[in-house]
Amino acid sequence: MSTRPLIVIVGVGNGSGTGGATARVFAKAGYRVALIARGADKLKKVADDVVAIASGAEVATFPIESYSFKALTDVFNAIRSYSWPSGGRTEIRVALYNAGAGVRKSFLDVSEKDIQVVVDANINGAFGFSHQVIKEFKKNEIDAKGKRGTLIFTGATASIRGNVTTSIFSAGKHALRALSQSLNKEFGKENIHVAHSIIDGAILTDTQLSRQEDANEFSSNPNIRLDPASIATGYLYLANQDRSAWTWELDLRPAHEKW
Amino acid sequence: MSTRPLIVIVGVGNGSGTGGATARVFAKAGYRVALIARGADKLKKVADDVVAIASGAEVATFPIESYSFKALTDVFNAIRSYSWPSGGRTEIRVALYNAGAGVRKSFLDVSEKDIQVVVDANINGAFGFSHQVIKEFKKNEIDAKGKRGTLIFTGATASIRGNVTTSIFSAGKHALRALSQSLNKEFGKENIHVAHSIIDGAILTDTQLSRQEDANEFSSNPNIRLDPASIATGYLYLANQDRSAWTWELDLRPAHEKW
Amino acid sequence: MSTRPLIVIVGVGNGSGTGGATARVFAKAGYRVALIARGADKLKKVADDVVAIASGAEVATFPIESYSFKALTDVFNAIRSYSWPSGGRTEIRVALYNAGAGVRKSFLDVSEKDIQVVVDANINGAFGFSHQVIKEFKKNEIDAKGKRGTLIFTGATASIRGNVTTSIFSAGKHALRALSQSLNKEFGKENIHVAHSIIDGAILTDTQLSRQEDANEFSSNPNIRLDPASIATGYLYLANQDRSAWTWELDLRPAHEKW
Amino acid sequence: MSTRPLIVIVGVGNGSGTGGATARVFAKAGYRVALIARGADKLKKVADDVVAIASGAEVATFPIESYSFKALTDVFNAIRSYSWPSGGRTEIRVALYNAGAGVRKSFLDVSEKDIQVVVDANINGAFGFSHQVIKEFKKNEIDAKGKRGTLIFTGATASIRGNVTTSIFSAGKHALRALSQSLNKEFGKENIHVAHSIIDGAILTDTQLSRQEDANEFSSNPNIRLDPASIATGYLYLANQDRSAWTWELDLRPAHEKW
Repeated sequence: MSTRPLIVIVGVGNGSGTGGATARVFAKAGYRVALIARGADKLKKVADDVVAIASGAEVATFPIESYSFKALTDVFNAIRSYSWPSGGRTEIRVALYNAGAGVRKSFLDVSEKDIQVVVDANINGAFGFSHQVIKEFKKNEIDAKGKRGTLIFTGATASIRGNVTTSIFSAGKHALRALSQSLNKEFGKENIHVAHSIIDGAILTDTQLSRQEDANEFSSNPNIRLDPASIATGYLYLANQDRSAWTWELDLRPAHEKW
Repeated sequence: MSTRPLIVIVGVGNGSGTGGATARVFAKAGYRVALIARGADKLKKVADDVVAIASGAEVATFPIESYSFKALTDVFNAIRSYSWPSGGRTEIRVALYNAGAGVRKSFLDVSEKDIQVVVDANINGAFGFSHQVIKEFKKNEIDAKGKRGTLIFTGATASIRGNVTTSIFSAGKHALRALSQSLNKEFGKENIHVAHSIIDGAILTDTQLSRQEDANEFSSNPNIRLDPASIATGYLYLANQDRSAWTWELDLRPAHEKW
Repeated sequence: MSTRPLIVIVGVGNGSGTGGATARVFAKAGYRVALIARGADKLKKVADDVVAIASGAEVATFPIESYSFKALTDVFNAIRSYSWPSGGRTEIRVALYNAGAGVRKSFLDVSEKDIQVVVDANINGAFGFSHQVIKEFKKNEIDAKGKRGTLIFTGATASIRGNVTTSIFSAGKHALRALSQSLNKEFGKENIHVAHSIIDGAILTDTQLSRQEDANEFSSNPNIRLDPASIATGYLYLANQDRSAWTWELDLRPAHEKW
Repeated sequence: MSTRPLIVIVGVGNGSGTGGATARVFAKAGYRVALIARGADKLKKVADDVVAIASGAEVATFPIESYSFKALTDVFNAIRSYSWPSGGRTEIRVALYNAGAGVRKSFLDVSEKDIQVVVDANINGAFGFSHQVIKEFKKNEIDAKGKRGTLIFTGATASIRGNVTTSIFSAGKHALRALSQSLNKEFGKENIHVAHSIIDGAILTDTQLSRQEDANEFSSNPNIRLDPASIATGYLYLANQDRSAWTWELDLRPAHEKW
C-alpha cells in the first residue's frame, strides 16, 4: 500500500485564514497535514478543526518559537520522525509557506524590530523552510502528475507593488516572490514545481473581520473579499497541475476589487 | 429544467491544439459547445471528434471567412438563433478567444499584410467577439459561483515580451492582453470574469509537431512542451473560480522550460 | 565639413506638447528638424515657432493625410530629397514617434472607427515609420557616442496598464511598447538604440489645459502635470546616451502624481 | 553665498565602479562628496582620486564597519558634524545607495551567513541610510528644480528577475527595489525624488575585469559592458530632473546585451 502524501503548511494563525483552509481542503483530498506555527494551543485547535470536517484526516502540529532560519530548519527533524497513525513513511508532496507579517506604517516609523519581523517571516524563515522542502522533494519519486512535489508561497499586492505604507512589508514580499521565481527556475528541471500567489485583496479571516467598519457586509458579500476556501481550492489546482503545464504565479482577487 | 450552459470557442485549427482540447474538456463537463473558425470542413471534423469522446455532447460549428470585427460580430446572430437538440435557449457562460497568428520574422520583412493578419486576429476580431460576449453575459443571471460568465483569452510569451523576431506578433499579443485586463477591470463589478493565459512554451499540436527536429521526443516528453488538455484543464479551473477569488492572468509552462 | 544631424518627429499637434518641445530642444542642440503631422498650416506654424526660439535652426515640414503604413512610408521620400539650406545630405540620427490617439470610452462604445484610428496611430503608422527609420539608421556610420541612431516612442500609463475606459487605447499603447522592445532587441547589436517612454501623468498642452476644471492651477503648478520641455530634455538625454549604457524604458511623472 | 550641495554615496569599492564614477561626475558638477564604505584606507584612496580629477573638489570619507541599520544610521552623525573646507552647512541634496552583495550560488548552498550579508546590504543598511537621508531632505528648502533632494538606488537584473543562481541575491535586490518604489510614492508629495536603476549587464570594474576570460575585449569593447562613467551620467540626469517629470526607474544596458 502506498504512503499517503503529506502537505506541510507554515503559518496558520487561528485557522480562519488561508493556512487553515488549505489544511482542510487538502485533508479532504486525502493528504496528511503537518501544521507549523507559533502557539501550540492555537495550533492544536486548528488541527482539531481539520479532523472535525475531514473524518479520518491525519493532522500533526509542530509549534515553533519564531520564523528564524534555524527554527524552520529544525522543525523538519520533528516532522521526519513523526509516526503517522496509519503508518508508512513521511512523504512531503506539497508545502505551503504562508507566513505573514503585515506591517503597514509610515517609512519613518519603521523600526529595526519591524524590519527583523518582516525579514524573518519572508526571508530567513522562507529560506530555512525551502531548504528542507527542496531536499525532501529531491528524495521523492516522480508521481503520476510528473512531479516530485509542489511548493507554494502566499504573496500579496505588496509582492508586486511598493506603496506609501508598505516600505518594509513590500520589501519582504518582493523578496519572497524573487525566491519563489528563482526556485521555480532552478528546480523545475528536477520536476519540482514552485508557485507563488498574489492575493490581491482582503481575505475573510477573523483578524480582517475585526478590522472592518461594516463587518456584516464584509462577511456576507463575496464580491468584496477573498474566501480562504477559494484560495485553498486554487492551491489544490496548482498541486494537481501536471508537468506539461504548470503555473508559477496565480493572482486571485474578488470580483469587485478595484485594481 | 435549467438550460445547459454554452461555451463559445474561437480558433480551433484542426482540433489538435488548445481550442479543440478546451471543447472536449468542457463538453465532458456538461457544456454545450459552439466552435468558430475558418474552414467549414475542418471545423465539422473537430466537432465530430468532440462528440466521439463526450457522448451526448452538443456541438455546433460556425465557420467564418476572416477574423474581422464584422465577421466575429455577425457570427453571433447564427449562434443566438441556433436550435440545440436538447432544447432550451442559448446561454453563453464561457467564451474562449483562441485565435492565433504566429507571425515570426525579422522586422524589416514584416509586410502590411502580416500586420493586417495579426491586427485582425488580436484586435479587430477580439473586439468584435468580446463586444458580443460581454453583451450576452450582461443578460445572464448570476450563477451559483457568483458569475455572469467567464471570458478567457489565450496569450503567449510574446504577450509580455517583445523579441528579435516578434515585432508584429508581440504587438498583437500585447494588445490582446491589454484588452483582457481592461475588460477584467471594467466588467468585474458586474460579476463578469475576464482572464488571460500566458502560454510560455511550445504546445503539442500537429503543427508544432511537424516543425520539430525530434518529433518523437517532443511528442513523448511532457517535460518540454504543453499538453493542450492540461491547458484546457486550467481553463476549466478559471471558469469554475468563484467570485471571491478569481484570476486575471495564468501562466502555464512545461517543467523543463528555460525562462 | 560634417553634415548636421537630423531629428524626424511624427506627431506635433499645435506645437504645445511633446513633439513641439522636442523640436525646440533638439533644434537648440544643433539638430535639423523634420516635422511630420496632419495639417500643413498648423505644422508650418510649429516650424516657425522653432525657428523663432532657435535662431539659425533648419526646420522642414512634411504633412501627411493619415497615420497609415503607406503615408508614413511615402513621407520619407520627401524627407530624403529635401534640400537643406546649409547643404549636406539628409542624415537622420534621431527619430521620435509621438503620434497619439487618446480614445477613452466604455468598451461597448468602442466603434470600428475608434479601433482603426488607434491601430493606425500605434501600429500601422508606427511600423511604416520604423521601417524607414531603421533603414536610414543602418546606412549611418557609428558616431562618437557609438550609435547609428536613436528611435524614441512616446508611451503612456496605458502602455503598461489596461483600465476601465482604455480597452482600445491601452491595446494600441501596449502594441507600440512591444514594437519598441522588439526593435531594441533586434537592432541593438547594430548599434541602433530604440527607447520607449512612459508618460505617467497629464502633460501641459493646450488641449489638456482646455479640459481642466482649474486651468490656472494646472498651468502654474509643476508638481501636478508634466512640462513638455522636461520630457524633451529626457529625450535629449536618451539620444546622448552612449552605447555602453543605454535605456529602453524611461518613466516620467510629476512629483505629486499618485501612482 | 549659498552652501554647495552635498552628495552622499554608500558603496564605492576601490573606486573603479559606479560609486567612484558617481563621486567624480558629481564633484565635477560642483557637489561636495561624502563617501561611505568599509575600509578606511581604500576609501581614502578613492577620495584622493576624485580630488585629482576635479580640482577644488571637497571630498570627505566616512568608513563603516558593516551595512547594519545602526552603522548606516550612526555615520550620519559624523557627516552632519563634518567641517567642510569652504565652510557653510552640510546640505545633502543627492544620495546614492550603491551597496552590493552579489552572492550567486545554488540555492542549497546559500548559508545563513550569505542571507545575512545580503539582507544587511539590501534591507538593514538601506533602511538605516534612507531614514537619515529622508530626514535630511525634509529639512531642505525646495530648490530651483522643485526638489528637496534625490535618493538613487542601484539595482540589477536581479531586481526584476529571479534566476537559477540568484535566490538570495534577487531576494535582496527585489526588496531594495520595493523600498525605492514605496519611498517614491510616500515622499514624492514632499518633493523628494526617489529613483532606482536597473543595471542590466556587467559593469567595467576592476573586479569584473579580473573575472573575464578575454579581459582585453571586455575592457576595450563598450558594446558589451557598462562604463561606470555612463551610469554616473545617468544619475546626474536623474538628479537634475525637475519636479514636473521625474523618473522612478531607469534601465541601463550595453548596446549588444542580449535580454
